[in-house]
Amino acid sequence: MAGSLPVSPLAPARFPDLPVIAGVEFSAVAAGVRYPGRTDVMLARLAPGSTVAGVFTRSATRSAPVLDCQAKLAVESAGTTGAAILVNSGNSNAFTGSAGEGSVQAICEAVSAAAGVPQERVFTSSTGVIGERLPHDRITAKVGELVSALAADGIEKAARAIMTTDTFPKGAEATVETSAGPVRIAGIAKGSGMIAPDMATMLVYIFTDAAVPQPVLQSMLSSLTDVTFNAITVDSDTSTSDTLLLAATGQSGAAITEADSADGRAFSEALHGVMLDLAKQVVRDGEGASKFVEVQVTGAVNDGDAKKVAMAIANSPLIKTAIAGEDPNWGRVVMAVGKSGAEADRDRLSIRFGDILVAENGWVAGSYNEAAGATYMKQSELVIGVDLGLGSGSFTAWTCDLTHGYISINADYRS
Amino acid sequence: MAGSLPVSPLAPARFPDLPVIAGVEFSAVAAGVRYPGRTDVMLARLAPGSTVAGVFTRSATRSAPVLDCQAKLAVESAGTTGAAILVNSGNSNAFTGSAGEGSVQAICEAVSAAAGVPQERVFTSSTGVIGERLPHDRITAKVGELVSALAADGIEKAARAIMTTDTFPKGAEATVETSAGPVRIAGIAKGSGMIAPDMATMLVYIFTDAAVPQPVLQSMLSSLTDVTFNAITVDSDTSTSDTLLLAATGQSGAAITEADSADGRAFSEALHGVMLDLAKQVVRDGEGASKFVEVQVTGAVNDGDAKKVAMAIANSPLIKTAIAGEDPNWGRVVMAVGKSGAEADRDRLSIRFGDILVAENGWVAGSYNEAAGATYMKQSELVIGVDLGLGSGSFTAWTCDLTHGYISINADYRS
Repeated sequence: MAGSLPVSPLAPARFPDLPVIAGVEFSAVAAGVRYPGRTDVMLARLAPGSTVAGVFTRSATRSAPVLDCQAKLAVESAGTTGAAILVNSGNSNAFTGSAGEGSVQAICEAVSAAAGVPQERVFTSSTGVIGERLPHDRITAKVGELVSALAADGIEKAARAIMTTDTFPKGAEATVETSAGPVRIAGIAKGSGMIAPDMATMLVYIFTDAAVPQPVLQSMLSSLTDVTFNAITVDSDTSTSDTLLLAATGQSGAAITEADSADGRAFSEALHGVMLDLAKQVVRDGEGASKFVEVQVTGAVNDGDAKKVAMAIANSPLIKTAIAGEDPNWGRVVMAVGKSGAEADRDRLSIRFGDILVAENGWVAGSYNEAAGATYMKQSELVIGVDLGLGSGSFTAWTCDLTHGYISINADYRS
Repeated sequence: MAGSLPVSPLAPARFPDLPVIAGVEFSAVAAGVRYPGRTDVMLARLAPGSTVAGVFTRSATRSAPVLDCQAKLAVESAGTTGAAILVNSGNSNAFTGSAGEGSVQAICEAVSAAAGVPQERVFTSSTGVIGERLPHDRITAKVGELVSALAADGIEKAARAIMTTDTFPKGAEATVETSAGPVRIAGIAKGSGMIAPDMATMLVYIFTDAAVPQPVLQSMLSSLTDVTFNAITVDSDTSTSDTLLLAATGQSGAAITEADSADGRAFSEALHGVMLDLAKQVVRDGEGASKFVEVQVTGAVNDGDAKKVAMAIANSPLIKTAIAGEDPNWGRVVMAVGKSGAEADRDRLSIRFGDILVAENGWVAGSYNEAAGATYMKQSELVIGVDLGLGSGSFTAWTCDLTHGYISINADYRS
């Protein structure tokens, strides 16, 4: 399956030029976990002094690697030692009983020995099929090779090694000017199905050369996740393996000690940009996607209600199929507002497709022209705007359409 | 669109023989609301002495007919006068501003005058496209014809007139022996898309010749809705028009004055059977459905948690596409349990496909054979069983698969 799909029509033109982050090296290898003839394991090694923050799936059946990362991050670390991140694609090591925990342990031991970092600072992720034993010996056999190949400019190779049904590798970057000089951020992500909100979505690794204490790093990461990875959805299904790790090597010499400072705000804004860019790329590679859709909800009684409406729209199969069919079916938007559970008043609600006012005052807008709506829907990037007219709550979500491609990919992914 | 779809492969062999319910007459007419060349309006007239109970969508953008029915049922009626139910297909009269309320008023006035029932006892429903003005004059022009054609054996015609993307008319019946003699129940339903739980789903009309006080009728209807129409889902989208009406004419002479009596329990059990039969027929006519799926969840800490798990499975696009692909992808069931929000423990969970034990003790079952799983999935009726191993909470839900047919139907239904 993987590799045989055409590249998403919504893909960026090319993988971006990502800056080297001093203190991080990357490598990738073909270990044959599941996919033949391609790289499927990546390693990132972080220099001593790096801090690491993480956000994970809240699934009750989360995978062994997720549970292991959470346990390790629960123990605060000043980052005086180095750290490592190893990720494999092709097998999620989820719902594999105690054998799953054994696999994580074996991989962490091998990485610790070969990369020279303490085992409690080795973080792993696995993505792919659920419920099949991870052949971890194929991975541990390649750990020496991975360590030998580590290179500061290896991040694109790492991005490619973690793909499953992804049709393109995902990267994003930013440079921030702080009072102590420039700080760089580079991140990679994977994901195209089993993508749903309320979780750190799929696998995302972000690196910076800023010096950020772990509690500050964790706090920034958690709050920005709510408006980036927790604001996207492909199919409303939530993975057992979602993992988002952010590592700060400190090697730029620029310290960000407080979130609420000029440098802290500048860094947070740049980090937000990188996270949102990666999150949108995940949507652009949504399984079978042909349209990229931004859902802007305003005028709700509070932000929570705005999110309910945005997600009801973004997850509605009827809206997503209408978009696939280029049908300006705004009645289905009314339906989604109604079912969302948010406070709504038919007569104060307004709906826009891009700049086109479609409905207001409880009915279709007098100025609305169906032909203009139909022309708008032919675009590959769409904005659905809903103003509830009740208050100042707002939320923006991103999603893609639901096409025959999604059915084809998922009706025979595993078999 | 309507009428051009092939009949669902899951359809019953034929429309059932429904008993005549003394005190109810039916008719149907082709009014040309939207669909040419077919009946699209039905009328049911209830004799004096009938009581009526209802359950409706909780959508915040519910339609004008729903709001009107709710207002009328909020005023308790002893049922000394007659009553009438008029339903049109092709246009839902939802999100049509004050014009929508005017249309309901016009139809109720015409029916009241022609059928000889008070206007406050005329209930209407509309199903079809959202946001377009209902051409109610086409309906009022036919009300005289509808009244003239009323007949005690007209229920199948009524069932056909309310179809939209339905591929077969839906009916069910029961006869109950009470201490005062036999009582009959007959019901009809429509629905195949925009079907989601937590509501009375789409349009359902059930009639009985039992004599049941309105509060008793309403109480029975509400509690049985939770385990029938609120336990099905086609696509997780909830209509603005869902309406379930139950009318008791009393003309059998058998009175059911209390739910908690031998006769009350017998009647409730029969009513449950009719409601569940109709609910399952709605799923069997789910847009694009090729498989009928029962999801049985047991061992939850409580019934609420069991319902969360059942609905997470029944609404998961990844599970529904796997079923369409006849793929025994039980890992996706694990995913859905995990995302449901219910309490779950990987190591106490077990999963069955029919009688086949698939997973237990946190992993695939030792006895599980993938070939047997794949063979099972080829059946058109499937049972997915999940036992959480934590308590005695249980819930059963019904759904269908997600196929290319759903995409085709919904990518161009309106245009």
